[in-house]
Amino acid sequence: MEPRVDFISLGVRNVAESRALYVDGLGWPVHREVAGEVLFIQVNHGLVLSLWDARQMQAEAGTSQPAGVPCITLSHNVKSPQDVDRVLEEAAAAGAAIIAEPVTQPWGGYTGYFADPDGFRWEVAYNPGWAVDDAGTVTV
Amino acid sequence: MEPRVDFISLGVRNVAESRALYVDGLGWPVHREVAGEVLFIQVNHGLVLSLWDARQMQAEAGTSQPAGVPCITLSHNVKSPQDVDRVLEEAAAAGAAIIAEPVTQPWGGYTGYFADPDGFRWEVAYNPGWAVDDAGTVTV
Repeated sequence: MEPRVDFISLGVRNVAESRALYVDGLGWPVHREVAGEVLFIQVNHGLVLSLWDARQMQAEAGTSQPAGVPCITLSHNVKSPQDVDRVLEEAAAAGAAIIAEPVTQPWGGYTGYFADPDGFRWEVAYNPGWAVDDAGTVTV
Repeated sequence: MEPRVDFISLGVRNVAESRALYVDGLGWPVHREVAGEVLFIQVNHGLVLSLWDARQMQAEAGTSQPAGVPCITLSHNVKSPQDVDRVLEEAAAAGAAIIAEPVTQPWGGYTGYFADPDGFRWEVAYNPGWAVDDAGTVTV
């Protein structure tokens, strides 16, 4: 598994309230948005901040958040569904807990999750619509 | 405030356990380390993952973590102490809660913190030892 974070997803109670701060208040450009569900903002070369309705985020992960564990996911994107399986095997061999076996998502991706020793959640994702160009601009 | 995340800091119970997974297990290269205190790993162009003893992380932030709020900080670096003050004013004007007024840190930086509507914590930091070159390689 390469040392690379592609998405930072924060589970929020109300996407409109997050939008009011980050977009209306701070003036950060919206990369892509599904009103009331999820809001993407590019926050570095090849890096996207996702402000995502916490309930939907939990549902997609196929795992509820243990008490006291942050509603956040760091995502590592790979080039194929086979790579998702392989990286999750590597993570398990490295001592991580597999908290959600990989599944095909309704949006066309294939994702699984592991947790680090503190329960911080990593998604390993194949997302057929994701790309980063040489300048670091992300397409989702 | 520019839309940019420079550090992702996770507050961990035991840095050695985190090291066992990320460095020994996954083979990620250590960027810089203070044994048992903090471990830096570069995880994208200009982006550093910091695995930081949670108690020290709370102490530096000058704010304890409210119950249920993740022990994580997203950091936004700026070029001067004056920029820290200015960006925190922008964040407050945008509706963010200032949770730690800026102070000079023992390591020479100047940092303050705000929280978003869900309590996710942002550090605005002047770090005189931090640089990113054109290839995205970070120096800390």
